[in-house]
Amino acid sequence: MQFTFTQILDIIGTLAFAISGIRLSSAKRFDLFGAYIVGLVTAIGGGTARDIMLNNEIFWMHDPIYLILTGIALIWVMIFGKQLIHQNSTWFLFDTIGLAMFTVTGIEKTLSAPDDYPFWVAIIMGALTGAAGGVFRDVFMNQVPLIFRGEIYAMACIAGGVFYWVLSAFGCNHVTCGIACAVLVIVLRLVAVMFKLHLPFLKGEDN
Amino acid sequence: MQFTFTQILDIIGTLAFAISGIRLSSAKRFDLFGAYIVGLVTAIGGGTARDIMLNNEIFWMHDPIYLILTGIALIWVMIFGKQLIHQNSTWFLFDTIGLAMFTVTGIEKTLSAPDDYPFWVAIIMGALTGAAGGVFRDVFMNQVPLIFRGEIYAMACIAGGVFYWVLSAFGCNHVTCGIACAVLVIVLRLVAVMFKLHLPFLKGEDN
Amino acid sequence: MQFTFTQILDIIGTLAFAISGIRLSSAKRFDLFGAYIVGLVTAIGGGTARDIMLNNEIFWMHDPIYLILTGIALIWVMIFGKQLIHQNSTWFLFDTIGLAMFTVTGIEKTLSAPDDYPFWVAIIMGALTGAAGGVFRDVFMNQVPLIFRGEIYAMACIAGGVFYWVLSAFGCNHVTCGIACAVLVIVLRLVAVMFKLHLPFLKGEDN
Repeated sequence: MQFTFTQILDIIGTLAFAISGIRLSSAKRFDLFGAYIVGLVTAIGGGTARDIMLNNEIFWMHDPIYLILTGIALIWVMIFGKQLIHQNSTWFLFDTIGLAMFTVTGIEKTLSAPDDYPFWVAIIMGALTGAAGGVFRDVFMNQVPLIFRGEIYAMACIAGGVFYWVLSAFGCNHVTCGIACAVLVIVLRLVAVMFKLHLPFLKGEDN
Repeated sequence: MQFTFTQILDIIGTLAFAISGIRLSSAKRFDLFGAYIVGLVTAIGGGTARDIMLNNEIFWMHDPIYLILTGIALIWVMIFGKQLIHQNSTWFLFDTIGLAMFTVTGIEKTLSAPDDYPFWVAIIMGALTGAAGGVFRDVFMNQVPLIFRGEIYAMACIAGGVFYWVLSAFGCNHVTCGIACAVLVIVLRLVAVMFKLHLPFLKGEDN
Repeated sequence: MQFTFTQILDIIGTLAFAISGIRLSSAKRFDLFGAYIVGLVTAIGGGTARDIMLNNEIFWMHDPIYLILTGIALIWVMIFGKQLIHQNSTWFLFDTIGLAMFTVTGIEKTLSAPDDYPFWVAIIMGALTGAAGGVFRDVFMNQVPLIFRGEIYAMACIAGGVFYWVLSAFGCNHVTCGIACAVLVIVLRLVAVMFKLHLPFLKGEDN
């Protein structure tokens, strides 16, 4: 049951990530194939980068569900078109759930890797799993990655990862740590958006 | 003999891919070194991404021919300069041969990998081998990847890969499957260009 | 002692690379987190790409010093702000030391890899270790990589690598080869900047 619940959250997150990529592509007049690829890269790019860096087998290569979900996301965007804007809050919530889920997955895959990595590598891999897909999406769209320009996004993953670490050091089991980490990521992101919190900008030398 | 014929097609494809990267660089005022690197990335980027994702040894690391061919391509562009435009049809044809060859190589390297991948992974790896080099080229040129904006390119690789799969399921040997796949990729791309076929665009939410 | 000296140069180079990324980010109005990530990618991106391609364990995953140094670099840029411009010559020198150190590291890691690579792969890996971080930085900043547009940068790494190869073929031990390679990289880069040497541009077809 716990397993199935996790899977449902993973599906929701994948759909939300794919939809974010596909919507941005449509604004740039990509064709259907290009939109599909950008959606796919947004959804699986972070986990793929993680698996390459950890020398794991790449997670989507033995399960076609991520390709299928991206296809569903594409159809969803085609059907709803302009009306998608009325679903913004829902997809924002789902995107946040995805961010939290992917963070926990990244941490736990690192901790269970055959190589024995220090915990800070797991935290980095959690943030990478959650946030790198969006960076690749922006590189393909030929725009400066959004997450580098003020949004609390990867920082929420890192805070969640540190929380996981602390609870784990206090002897909590990995289910508790995972849930607490995910909840913290979600809360931080929601609070940041509600109160328009953002990280300070680095002052340029020329202004 | 069959082996040599395959190699010749591989050489033609590599030259054509490298030339496409070098010509685009020259339009952006890259220096000779930059043009060489962009040519090289266009030629070997797809296969390199494939080998990293399959955890294979990277194909060009034991054979300097790809570096040499990129050097020849650079010299070719320097010698012919503006006259290259008169060779457009030839290089388009060679580029298409390269796309077909690289697709078949990507499929067969996946099927012969020590890990047992499902066939759809081989199809993806075929398309990646054929099309990813051009995506990396465009990212380095700081432009939106051309193949996402309407051209039938990676879609031809995927159609070829599906055809390979079907023939293989009907018991054809890998030489037959490979030739049929390559021919289909070439025909699809030529027909698409002749009849100006393109994929439908995704309607943006804002227009 | 020799070991410690090498480490000091590695630290200097890492700081300089991180600072170059962070300064460019500040010009693009990145937030502190984005600036940190771009600094980190500039500092460790080349070595990470090398380790992925050689199938090595990624070098920074067992030593947090690179993350810490990037943090120090960020604080440095925040403290000095506009005054950094007065440190330009110093950081240029440190950046050049980093380029030389990273080139030697890339060559030696390739030569000591379990797989037996030809020497030209080591030269490529040296240049990749030195120069790829800056390319990734520029891709994230959404600008055409600087090193493709006339600067003598990766070419100095390649010249240094060839020099390493020649000395090694004449029987010099790896310490001598490494020092000679590093000195050549530094001298070439300094001379190129002092005399404003640059590679010839590739003539475009349209001008």
